[in-house]
Formats: sequence, C-alpha cells, structure tokens
Amino acid sequence: MTRPIAIFDTTLRSAEQAPGAALSLTEKLAIARELVKLHVDVIEAGKPGASASEFESVREVGRVVDDACVVCALAKPEEDAIATAAEALATAKRPRIRVGLGVSPLHLEEKFNRSEDEAVRRAVSAVRLAKSHVDDVEFYAKDAGRADEDFLVRICEEVIVAGATVVNIHDTTGYNLPWEFGERIARLKRRVRGMGAVTLSVHTHNDLGMATARALEAVRNGATQVECAINGVGRRAGNAALEEIAMAIRAHGEELDAHTGVDARRLMSASRLVSSITGIGVQPNKPIVGANAFTHPSGAEREGESEVRDAEHLINAEDVGVGGSPIVLSARSGQATLKRRLAELGYTFDDAEFEDVYDAFLEVADKKRLIYDEDLNAIVREHKRAQNALWRLESVQVTCGFPLTPTATVTLVDERGKEHTEACWGGGPVDAACKAIDQVVGVRNELQGFSVTSVTRGVDALGEVTVAVVADDGRVFRGRGSDNDIVVSSARAYLNALNRLIAAGR
Amino acid sequence: MTRPIAIFDTTLRSAEQAPGAALSLTEKLAIARELVKLHVDVIEAGKPGASASEFESVREVGRVVDDACVVCALAKPEEDAIATAAEALATAKRPRIRVGLGVSPLHLEEKFNRSEDEAVRRAVSAVRLAKSHVDDVEFYAKDAGRADEDFLVRICEEVIVAGATVVNIHDTTGYNLPWEFGERIARLKRRVRGMGAVTLSVHTHNDLGMATARALEAVRNGATQVECAINGVGRRAGNAALEEIAMAIRAHGEELDAHTGVDARRLMSASRLVSSITGIGVQPNKPIVGANAFTHPSGAEREGESEVRDAEHLINAEDVGVGGSPIVLSARSGQATLKRRLAELGYTFDDAEFEDVYDAFLEVADKKRLIYDEDLNAIVREHKRAQNALWRLESVQVTCGFPLTPTATVTLVDERGKEHTEACWGGGPVDAACKAIDQVVGVRNELQGFSVTSVTRGVDALGEVTVAVVADDGRVFRGRGSDNDIVVSSARAYLNALNRLIAAGR
Repeated sequence: MTRPIAIFDTTLRSAEQAPGAALSLTEKLAIARELVKLHVDVIEAGKPGASASEFESVREVGRVVDDACVVCALAKPEEDAIATAAEALATAKRPRIRVGLGVSPLHLEEKFNRSEDEAVRRAVSAVRLAKSHVDDVEFYAKDAGRADEDFLVRICEEVIVAGATVVNIHDTTGYNLPWEFGERIARLKRRVRGMGAVTLSVHTHNDLGMATARALEAVRNGATQVECAINGVGRRAGNAALEEIAMAIRAHGEELDAHTGVDARRLMSASRLVSSITGIGVQPNKPIVGANAFTHPSGAEREGESEVRDAEHLINAEDVGVGGSPIVLSARSGQATLKRRLAELGYTFDDAEFEDVYDAFLEVADKKRLIYDEDLNAIVREHKRAQNALWRLESVQVTCGFPLTPTATVTLVDERGKEHTEACWGGGPVDAACKAIDQVVGVRNELQGFSVTSVTRGVDALGEVTVAVVADDGRVFRGRGSDNDIVVSSARAYLNALNRLIAAGR
Repeated sequence: MTRPIAIFDTTLRSAEQAPGAALSLTEKLAIARELVKLHVDVIEAGKPGASASEFESVREVGRVVDDACVVCALAKPEEDAIATAAEALATAKRPRIRVGLGVSPLHLEEKFNRSEDEAVRRAVSAVRLAKSHVDDVEFYAKDAGRADEDFLVRICEEVIVAGATVVNIHDTTGYNLPWEFGERIARLKRRVRGMGAVTLSVHTHNDLGMATARALEAVRNGATQVECAINGVGRRAGNAALEEIAMAIRAHGEELDAHTGVDARRLMSASRLVSSITGIGVQPNKPIVGANAFTHPSGAEREGESEVRDAEHLINAEDVGVGGSPIVLSARSGQATLKRRLAELGYTFDDAEFEDVYDAFLEVADKKRLIYDEDLNAIVREHKRAQNALWRLESVQVTCGFPLTPTATVTLVDERGKEHTEACWGGGPVDAACKAIDQVVGVRNELQGFSVTSVTRGVDALGEVTVAVVADDGRVFRGRGSDNDIVVSSARAYLNALNRLIAAGR
C-alpha cells in the first residue's frame, strides 16, 4: 500500500484573493458541499478574525461538513484571533487552526527586527494558544522557500514540541525551482526532530507555471499533505490546481509511493461549480478540466492514432466526470420532479420560495429544450441573488443590431417598491443597458471586468455573466447574472454588483 | 556568460491541433510577424505535405520572416513529403526540415513490426534525404519519454552521423515526471556520441500540468532548445507555454546556466494576438499573461505587504508588457494618422481598401471613445474576413430583454449580390440571430462552442466572438466576428464559420 497524501483544499479562502471574487455564504456552502463529495481531507474555510461574515461562513461550513473531513480556520498569531478562530470552529467535528508567520530574511527584518529568537517565541506561543483550543494545529512557515535552512529547521522543531500536528512549508511567491524545493523538503524531513510524527505539508504557487511540479517533488521527498485549489484559483497566478495534483499522483502512484482519496469522477463538476461561482474561467487547454483536455481533433489522424490511444490510456475523459449530468428535465417536468431533483442537488425551499423557483424554471425551459443540473444550479443562484437585492430588475427591453444604435429601456424597483424607468443608447446592447441602470441607481463606479460562461452546451445555453465594478474607494465588487438572453444576464450581473457595492457602503 | 537556449515556437503548427482552430494565411502571417518581434529562434511554420494551403503558408511565413530566425517545416519521413517541405522552404533564408518517428515500444510495434533496425534505417534515410535539401535538419524521437533507453541512444547516434543538427526528445503524452525526464536527458547527453556537437531539444506536453517543469529539468540537464507555444496552445492540454519558459529561465538564469533571446516586453501582446486569432482564451490565473497574474487585491493587505513586494520583485508587470498600447486614436484622428498607425502595425492597403477600413474605424470610434492598437487589429481582421465572404451580413436587427421574446431579422447578400431576409425568435438574441441566418443559408451544422473576448478594457470595448460549428461529416469550423455590439459580433462570427464550412465543401 502506498502512502496516503492528504489533500488540503484552499479554494474557499484563496478564491477570494483573486480580484473581486468575494463569495457569499450560500456560494461558500455550495463549494464546501462539492468538496465533501470530492473527498478532500481538509477544507480551509476562511479566516474568522477577518470579518463577521467570514466568522459566520467558517461556522456554517463546519456545520455542513460535519465529520466528513477536517475544517481548518486561519488565524493571525495573536491571542484574540486564535480564540475567534476556535469559536468559529465550534460547529466542526474535526477542527484545525492554522497559524504561521514569515520565516525568510525579508519577513524577519520587517516583523521581528531580524530576531530569530523573537520569531520562534511568537510561533511557539501561537501554536500553544491554538493547541489550548483544538488538538489539530497547523503551523505555516511563510516564504519558507527562501528562508535560511538552519533557522527553518529550528522553528519547525520548536513548533512540533509546542504541539503542532502539521508543519506547512509555504512557497509563497512561486519562486523556487521544483528540484530545489524538493531537496529542501528532503533535508527538512531528515533534519527536523519529530518531523516523522507530524504531517509535512506544502503550499505552492504558480507564478512561473510550476506549482504542480513543485508539490510533486515535495511528495516524492516526504511531504504527506498538499495544499491546493480547484482550477488553481488564488492570488496572482494562483495555487497548485487540485485536479492536476490528484491526477498526477494517480498516474504516478507507484513512483511517488503515494495515493489520495479524491473521487476523480467529480473533478469536472467541481471545476465547473467553482468557475461559475467565482467568475474565474478555465481556459480550453487547462490540464484535466479544460474543454480540450481530452479532445482529439483532425490533427490526430495526421499524426497517427497510436499517440491518441496512449494519451487516452493515461487519463480517460470519464475518469474525471466529463459527460455532464445524467438527469435532464424539460418544460414538461412537473413540480414534484423539480422539487425532488433540487433536493438531490442539496437545495430545499419553503413553499412560497419554491413557487418562485418553479416559475423561473418554466421561463428558462420555455426557451431551452433540455434543463441540466448545471442549469438548475444557475436558476437557484439567480433566485438567491434576487432575494437579497436592494434594486430589483423589473424589466429590460433592448433594440440593437447593425446598422442600428443600440438602445435599452430598463425598469428597476427600489426597496420601497417604487418603479423607476430610464432609457439610454450605448456602444452595444450591454453598454446601453448598463448606462440605463446607472441613470436609475446613480452610484459612481467603473465597470472593469466582463466575462461570459456558458452554463451548458449549445447556443440556447443559459449564459452566466460575471462583471466586476470598481467603487470610488478602489474596492472591487463582482456581480453575476444568468438568463437565456446574454443582454439580460449582463444587466442582472451589473445590477447585482451595484447592489453589493451599495450594501457594503452602508 | 550563461548558455543560450534556443526558443523553438510551435504555435503556428500546434494551435491548429486544438478543435476548430484552423488558421487562415493572414492569421498565420500576423502570428509569424509577432514571433519575429518576440525574438524567438525558430518558428515551426507547418507541414507543407499536409495540404496545398499549408504548403502556401510555410512559403509565405518564410518570406515574411526573412533572415530574422530559422523557419522549420515538418515532414513525414518519406521522400515526397521531404521534397515538398524543402520546396515550401525555398523562400526561407534559414530553412530547417523536421522529420521523425515514434520510438516507444508501442510505436515500434505498430509501424515497424517491432524491428528496431527498421526504425533506425527509416530515421537515417529520412535525415539523409532532408539533408540533401537543407543544412539544418531536426530529428524528433516521438514518445521518447517511454522509449527503451539503449534504443534511444542508438537511434540518436545514427541520425547524428546521418547529419541531424538537432535531436528532439519528444514527450508526446505529457506523461513523464519532471525529474525522470531530466535524468533521461542527462543520460542521453552523456551516452550519445556526438550529442555535444548538435542541439539537444525537448518538446513537452501539459496533460498533467508539468510541461514547463519538465522543460526546465531538461535545460538544467543539458538541453539547449525548448519547443513551446504562446499561451501553451496545442492538442489536448497543449504544449509548454513559451511565456512561462522564457520568464522561468530569466528568473533562474544562474542556477540553470541559461538565457534566451526572448523580448519579454512583447509577451503580453503576443499572448493577446494568439488568443484573439485562435479563439482559445487565457484564464485570469494563467501564469505570466493572465489578467490576474500581477494583481494584488484586498487580500494583500490582509496577509502583509512584504509578500506582495517579493512577488513583484520576481516579475514586474512592465517586464512582460502589461499596460497596453501607448498610442490611442479617436473619432477625431484623421485618415493620415490612421494610415500611419496601421503601417506601423504592419498593415498596408490600396486606396479602395483603406477607404473601407477607415469607414469601419469611424463606425467603431463613433461608439467607443478611445481606439487602441488591439481595436485596430480587430477592425482589420474583421475587414479581411468580410472581403472573402460568400455570404455577407447586410444588416441584423434584434429586439430582446426581459420579459420579451428575443427576435432577430437578418439580411444577407449572396455571391451574386442578391439580398435575402429572414426573421426568427430564439432563446436569446444570439440564438435568434443564428436561427435567422440558418434560415437564409440553409446549410446543416451544429453550433458547438461560443466564446467572447474583450479586445480592450471597459464595457464599450470591442467584443470578439469565436464560434465553432460542426458539419455533418464531423469537421469543425471556427468563425470570428467583432463589433461593439455583442449580438452583431456573434452573428458575424456564425456567418464567418458557415462561409468557411461552405468553402471547404466546394
């Protein structure tokens, strides 16, 4: 039997570090449920000390996950922050607190006036504090790739004595060459007293495109936990991609003496969920989960079939769950069928709410022949967004084309139920609709990002649009909307972003 | 001085191996010009024996590139194919022919009835034939990652004696672990007689997300040429990404004893050009060229500024040319200004053509305040597409919104100049417009892919839409269209794809 490698998923915390990708509680719980189905070992739920909403979401993730896996909360190495993390984790059956500090010369200089002793004291005290709340404590050595190795050995030994159960070597800037990182892991494994009794974890970033290779080098050299995220989301070029780690370990389990518990057949649905929720798309040539990762077009025949067969032998499309949901609804599916399928997807509604969802379902099904699970997810997400809206989209009507001047008329309803209507022309129908919404809402902002994802296949697919708007103070707010009509999706997304911006300002 | 590593760019050949990414001659030449500006060492232009159009494009790439770098043509290891490649390369000042065959047990069994002698004979004869036409001959050992090593040593030695100037170890399935691949390269460097006198090249695929790491391991172990593609395009999960290779070698030049001649400040514009032409987008967290690769949002402040500084120290945004074109035009820019800027971008037109381009420019500038180089490129591409169209879009008029039924009326002009008008409703405005076009054109197809790229920033940006349609015989045709209006872009893209489908059928 090969060594089990724990998969530590940081999607929930890391996705939010991409510009404007703040997630709502509902969205976080949907991702957490998917991670449980994927069989990851640890879910990093967030940083409870950062805000009330993050506290709340760590709490709710703990409830949803139950005992399916470890739930980890990040805390600053300070008494209050650690206590807050522990409190948020009270709902989790298998709680872990993650504390750490920068260990490279640059961090030591900035935070500890170059005193290694002071850094070790702070690390030990943080681990002890965390340990007074929970059994499972992870210490992360930030920027460890560039730390002095003798000092790194010392601080690792001290935190293990203080009770750390996991020591995480954190490649913060994505800088190390894979073999250098691997050699460092091998030496730490050998030199650090007590390392054999704890989990040796690695956290790698993808700035130079080598996060996966660095993590595998670490596994080969003794690491037993890998920190990664679905689709490789995260700050800058992101984290190691969970799907690449899982499939590479699967393909090379013997050479690496390693296996994971990940259910690979759910990789594709997890990938789609995360890209749809975060608005961070996946390029067609993304390994494992990209649309082309398994396709073999005309080129195949030009270069010989054997190569195609070889590659298919490596990873089959079905292995990662390509093919979509098996259950398909249509306009003729009754209320009971819809309710049952929604429940299977993890959604429950009271009667009034279900009526609204059913109406939305019928509206989509009128224009789109087949309704997949992905469509249902999008419909429910749209419904949830509409529920908490300050401004609600009552109607939008657009004329556009060539050679025409795109013109939009929108009617919005404010919190008191009053209707407001404005018309504008613009460069395109989306521009016109956004300008008309601007005229009603009247809040200053700059639209920065605009992306469209097809929820399912075909030209009649639901389109989910994500926009990012920048407020006057520089904060970024992301909004999403879905509809058969791309112009309506866009108007909904823009209004959703403005609603978030206004709510944050109150 | 560190070792120079040759950058062999395979974008032109590899991009077409992604589904439906067939490129026109104009598109190939635009990419070739960009590669010259990037200062790559070798451009793989195509496989002249594959079709008359590929023959023609290798020829024209040779003309455009002149003596700026090596132009390489791929050929089957057969006399006719090699002669055809040589003929296509007659325009190139520095021609190279690339021939090869599969060297793993699976390929030997399939092609040579397991006879190693026969495979060696074929390889040697192919190299000799190529050598009779050009001085510079590359032999590629396909699926070399899984070949028997003694055999691999033998075939490499024999092709070097036969005159090969470059030996390419081809990781065809993206299967090897980076360190295994690196060790194999080190052993080949040591064992193969004559290897020191030729270029040792590697070609790595990204199926498990480790193409860049594998290439770097090879460089560290003696490889002196890396084969890669802009944005990592290529079959399945694609090739090693040129931008990652270039920046990783730049960041670690001393450890690797290596440098390249790539002008990193052009990486971003090259990336944008290739994604716009191929319709294969770049995800926000793509290393080096993704939209988020250098951004540092709110998360930064939560985790400490030092980390941000460190990462910026590694690669600055300006290093790779982030920031867009310095010259901006507007509706008030005169004909002379536009003509001059187009010439600087490499476009020349006769007077009648320029009039058309100027009209298109004014139409865009009327609705969009600032016109960047990227906009000009899109306008010119749209113009070139319209020139060769069988069916031309005369007008499209759309009404849509919520709660409305999306309806489109299109007028198309056929080759004889006759107008045809049809109206349809659909699930959304794009669906409605495509259905109306279908009613006029009447050619069977299935719309498979639909993607939108913003050419520049802002909601009034030109949107470039790429669609893929599948013909009855399974062939995929890609179409593109750009306009301020996303519905018009989509209609143009769909019609462009249908025009290509019809042309191919004739």
